[in-house]
Amino acid sequence: MNIDWGEGSIDRDEMGRKMHALIGEMYPLCRSITGAGFRETLSMVSRRIPLDIHEVPTGTPVFDWTVPKEWNIRDAYVKNGAGERVIDFRKSNLHVVSYSIPVEATLSLKELKTHLFTLPEQPDRIPYRTAYYQETWGFCLSHQELLKMEEDRYKVRIDSSLEPGNLTYGECYLSGEEEHEILISCHACHPSLCNDNLSGVAMVTFLAKHLSAQPNRRYSYRFLFIPGTIGSITWLSLNEDRVHRIRHGLVAACLGDPGRMTYKKTRRGDAEIDKAVTHVLQHSGQDYEILDFSPYGYDERQYGSPGFNLPVGCLMRTPYGRYPEYHTSADDLAFVSPASLADSFMQYLAVLRVLENNRTYVNLNPKCEPQLGRRGLYRLMGGDREAGFDQMSMLWVLNLSDGGHTLLDIAERSGRPFAAIRRAATALQDSGLLQTADNGNLLNG
Amino acid sequence: MNIDWGEGSIDRDEMGRKMHALIGEMYPLCRSITGAGFRETLSMVSRRIPLDIHEVPTGTPVFDWTVPKEWNIRDAYVKNGAGERVIDFRKSNLHVVSYSIPVEATLSLKELKTHLFTLPEQPDRIPYRTAYYQETWGFCLSHQELLKMEEDRYKVRIDSSLEPGNLTYGECYLSGEEEHEILISCHACHPSLCNDNLSGVAMVTFLAKHLSAQPNRRYSYRFLFIPGTIGSITWLSLNEDRVHRIRHGLVAACLGDPGRMTYKKTRRGDAEIDKAVTHVLQHSGQDYEILDFSPYGYDERQYGSPGFNLPVGCLMRTPYGRYPEYHTSADDLAFVSPASLADSFMQYLAVLRVLENNRTYVNLNPKCEPQLGRRGLYRLMGGDREAGFDQMSMLWVLNLSDGGHTLLDIAERSGRPFAAIRRAATALQDSGLLQTADNGNLLNG
Amino acid sequence: MNIDWGEGSIDRDEMGRKMHALIGEMYPLCRSITGAGFRETLSMVSRRIPLDIHEVPTGTPVFDWTVPKEWNIRDAYVKNGAGERVIDFRKSNLHVVSYSIPVEATLSLKELKTHLFTLPEQPDRIPYRTAYYQETWGFCLSHQELLKMEEDRYKVRIDSSLEPGNLTYGECYLSGEEEHEILISCHACHPSLCNDNLSGVAMVTFLAKHLSAQPNRRYSYRFLFIPGTIGSITWLSLNEDRVHRIRHGLVAACLGDPGRMTYKKTRRGDAEIDKAVTHVLQHSGQDYEILDFSPYGYDERQYGSPGFNLPVGCLMRTPYGRYPEYHTSADDLAFVSPASLADSFMQYLAVLRVLENNRTYVNLNPKCEPQLGRRGLYRLMGGDREAGFDQMSMLWVLNLSDGGHTLLDIAERSGRPFAAIRRAATALQDSGLLQTADNGNLLNG
Repeated sequence: MNIDWGEGSIDRDEMGRKMHALIGEMYPLCRSITGAGFRETLSMVSRRIPLDIHEVPTGTPVFDWTVPKEWNIRDAYVKNGAGERVIDFRKSNLHVVSYSIPVEATLSLKELKTHLFTLPEQPDRIPYRTAYYQETWGFCLSHQELLKMEEDRYKVRIDSSLEPGNLTYGECYLSGEEEHEILISCHACHPSLCNDNLSGVAMVTFLAKHLSAQPNRRYSYRFLFIPGTIGSITWLSLNEDRVHRIRHGLVAACLGDPGRMTYKKTRRGDAEIDKAVTHVLQHSGQDYEILDFSPYGYDERQYGSPGFNLPVGCLMRTPYGRYPEYHTSADDLAFVSPASLADSFMQYLAVLRVLENNRTYVNLNPKCEPQLGRRGLYRLMGGDREAGFDQMSMLWVLNLSDGGHTLLDIAERSGRPFAAIRRAATALQDSGLLQTADNGNLLNG
Repeated sequence: MNIDWGEGSIDRDEMGRKMHALIGEMYPLCRSITGAGFRETLSMVSRRIPLDIHEVPTGTPVFDWTVPKEWNIRDAYVKNGAGERVIDFRKSNLHVVSYSIPVEATLSLKELKTHLFTLPEQPDRIPYRTAYYQETWGFCLSHQELLKMEEDRYKVRIDSSLEPGNLTYGECYLSGEEEHEILISCHACHPSLCNDNLSGVAMVTFLAKHLSAQPNRRYSYRFLFIPGTIGSITWLSLNEDRVHRIRHGLVAACLGDPGRMTYKKTRRGDAEIDKAVTHVLQHSGQDYEILDFSPYGYDERQYGSPGFNLPVGCLMRTPYGRYPEYHTSADDLAFVSPASLADSFMQYLAVLRVLENNRTYVNLNPKCEPQLGRRGLYRLMGGDREAGFDQMSMLWVLNLSDGGHTLLDIAERSGRPFAAIRRAATALQDSGLLQTADNGNLLNG
Repeated sequence: MNIDWGEGSIDRDEMGRKMHALIGEMYPLCRSITGAGFRETLSMVSRRIPLDIHEVPTGTPVFDWTVPKEWNIRDAYVKNGAGERVIDFRKSNLHVVSYSIPVEATLSLKELKTHLFTLPEQPDRIPYRTAYYQETWGFCLSHQELLKMEEDRYKVRIDSSLEPGNLTYGECYLSGEEEHEILISCHACHPSLCNDNLSGVAMVTFLAKHLSAQPNRRYSYRFLFIPGTIGSITWLSLNEDRVHRIRHGLVAACLGDPGRMTYKKTRRGDAEIDKAVTHVLQHSGQDYEILDFSPYGYDERQYGSPGFNLPVGCLMRTPYGRYPEYHTSADDLAFVSPASLADSFMQYLAVLRVLENNRTYVNLNPKCEPQLGRRGLYRLMGGDREAGFDQMSMLWVLNLSDGGHTLLDIAERSGRPFAAIRRAATALQDSGLLQTADNGNLLNG
């Protein structure tokens, strides 16, 4: 029953390079919560993994929200009196406030300034701004560039369209032995920003690719590539009758920066996914941080709204807003590294391995210890205090396999790594001393 | 539904001075657990607030106890051979042991000494002693005075009476929207001692006065001015059929000294009043201390006896016995300050405000977040990390308003002040996103 | 109802000497899990206390195990070419691996070495080794002796027998008012090792002796002298229908070394025995350590297997494997002291005293405090802050005797010693204010 996906044979360097290369490929596109940039991004993903592309028409009611108009942009600039592009969308798509309506006008500097956004404290960086649910327009630029702009007549043009169309999202579903699902969700709506969240898109793509190649999966997997907020709301609205299948979930974001791993717990706070991630990080040999749930952040807000209360946490590196590059032009290809991406990938895989193998067993010989020796499970020479305690994990599994403890519970209680507890359970099961107690695959029955 | 009592407009200096002046007015009276001094004290209180005066006859059985004889005293002294009053009740009513029986005798110093009480470690202070439930007599004096007393024939006189009469207590009831009550209880039986507990009497008087002037009160309020121990036993005995209405309660004592606020929890330890006081003190910006319940102290012992187990804590400044002035003549008008009294008043008011406004709400849009933007509840420009997070409190209220969390629970979980959470709930309720879930006023239905 | 066993009159020095003398008497015998040495040990115990000797035939199935063949040994040695005994069983029975099969052979040093065991890191000590469940043989010796052995033809002889016979164990049962039992179990299977576990055997012997002399016992007591592991498995197998009577239990081991007391909790972790031992150690005035349960150690592993889950902890001094003398010839008569043995004895007695007297009471006057004064239970002069707070324990008992707290719970909650709480309960019961609530002796009814 062991699920083993041969992480040992993964070439981390190669995996890191592949993810970074995919980020590089997606980076130039101008994404937003709808439109061509998002579709092209999904197209790049779909060249790696089987992906269902869903198009949801503008105006579709999704709970308290409505699917917005589709936004597309071809060009945008601000020209000075000399006809020079002083702000040029072709140089960085961050220059245009996302969802800016079409505009063509000539303005004084003073008039123009009410539509310009900068970061005075990080004067060489372009900020990232959006205006999804109001019809307005604007430009973002570095504060240094703003200071250089002199009194002039500026010609402004945004060649965009905001019209009925579709909201697009991608879904990769891998069936497993059970219909119970693990949900991995990432937002793919940001333009040229690498850590937030092309890193998540790339990591989820290669995670899905790796899992799709495995011969055995206990859980079914659902990987979502969605626009932030409106995407998870739309997906939940369209799949309300299926969400009960979700047993565990993670929102994947900010996975390429140099910081330590950070886990934000589910709303429940003590879900199996919370225990699994905590265990993996505790045994990772690296520094890490565990945060309580809060209703601010990424799509875990929607999955964890009180009407759903799904066990979905958020596993990231440095959290949103805690690094200065966040939502600026400095969140670029240099900010995310193959090594960090590969490490994030391995941590995700380790968490999934724990979930896949976390079962509840029943000790079939619960009265006193069984005689491990005659089954070849015990060191032979008694009284030797130098003996390696290989049997400690077995004794823990036997003692706590009363139907009330999962292997992960036993790992936590004993302070031993999950893998050691799982190996012990396997050995005991092979010897006929243990039997699985959970009915996790009843749904298939 | 918000209960707002305009604390902002309270003149703390004036409030402090008024409370201190009332203490000064009550200070000279010789109070005990029964008698004229107690009645005159209630009379002074009743000039500020509507007060029902109850007289309970001597001999009335009250649970395991019996209402004692009424004690009154007119004069008392010890004269030396030269006829000089060396101990004089007219100088301080602390000189006579409370409930001393009438006596008229001539004694040697040695004989007299068996009836004298001093504090050798605080030689210039007169101690406070009582002898309620035994028929004896005694004098208290400073140790310095005792040392000056020479061998002589002393003439002792206590002109007191201990006869059938009444136990007196005062009750101020303010009805609210609900019949559920908040009980505020203070002992008013100590003679010339200011912090313990004229400070409590004065604070409760002005708290009742302030509340009586408010146009809206959710809870009904019961303010008790009682003799310690026998008073609460008597009240509980006479009101046994009504105590189920008490939802929250505080014993008010020692509220004028310069020390920090101290809260002694209810017997339950996790009652709403415990959470409310803890929250207010945590956000007071001042040092404070929280103590667990113990069955020693003031009338919380009776309210918290196992047969009642009422949620009544004790909110004070420095606790009984922890300041050297405690139960001595040094607990005088100089020991209590208008500033401390005013601060205590404000803390009580803040606790009551939390209780009044602490309701449980249900998110009417529990599946995913509602769109705050189109209701004018959200900052307009997305992606701006500089934006003030005014909406954080709203997100917390929406996320946890599942019927299982009060606003106070949400404040605790989010680490935000109750007032911010309450404002958010009000805004959400006004927008139709939230509905009250509690049936706190069912009793009125 | 108080159980008082007059510990005050115990002469600790004499008790310590007696236990140490018994250890000295048992020390030379060659014990194993079966055989003559074990029987002779029980015989020595039975000269102090009434002991039922049970013989369980080889081959008897006991859960997953089978009672093994009986092992006896008369002599064993390794002689060098000159005929000198270079390893001599007569000098120390540790020299022979326990359960070694008979052997008579002449071997080269190289051949012999595969059957020799030493402790290179403690070169002057003989290790202790066993080979219960495999048919092999071996010798143990100090590493220094091994290094002295030169190339030679060695004559090896083990004059042992491994044949069908019996497993022997001893049982001392003392009936009490209730059929509910307290189990005290010690393993008596180790050869010349004093702390592990002749200290346990001696302490349990004298504890049983002391208790048998007491006129009143609430609980019945069962003292087991068994071989480790197979002994508790055998006992549990033969007494499965009676184990429900066991309310509390302790495994007694390693009780003579100079270390501090250590308590390893029951599998449940919050059983009454766990609270009782913790309380006693907390108030012992000595350093101590509390360990969580783990499925490795002594017979608590079997009592705490999931099919039984009996509330049996292990109260010892320095735990197995944590002292260098453990399982070596250095665990000798000098390693265990009368003082440590006596201290262990007193701690066990203190724990039993708590269990015997730990009852749940109901306050018969639960509404408000009763008037302690008229019952002579209260200091007479009110207001005196110097008064000794003798009544604090009474107030705690009255306040928490609501049927939901044992005296031990009240001791824990109040931070007061169990003995003070118990005295208060007795005084209150004598005054008719308290009544026992537990039905601990229902089994007898």
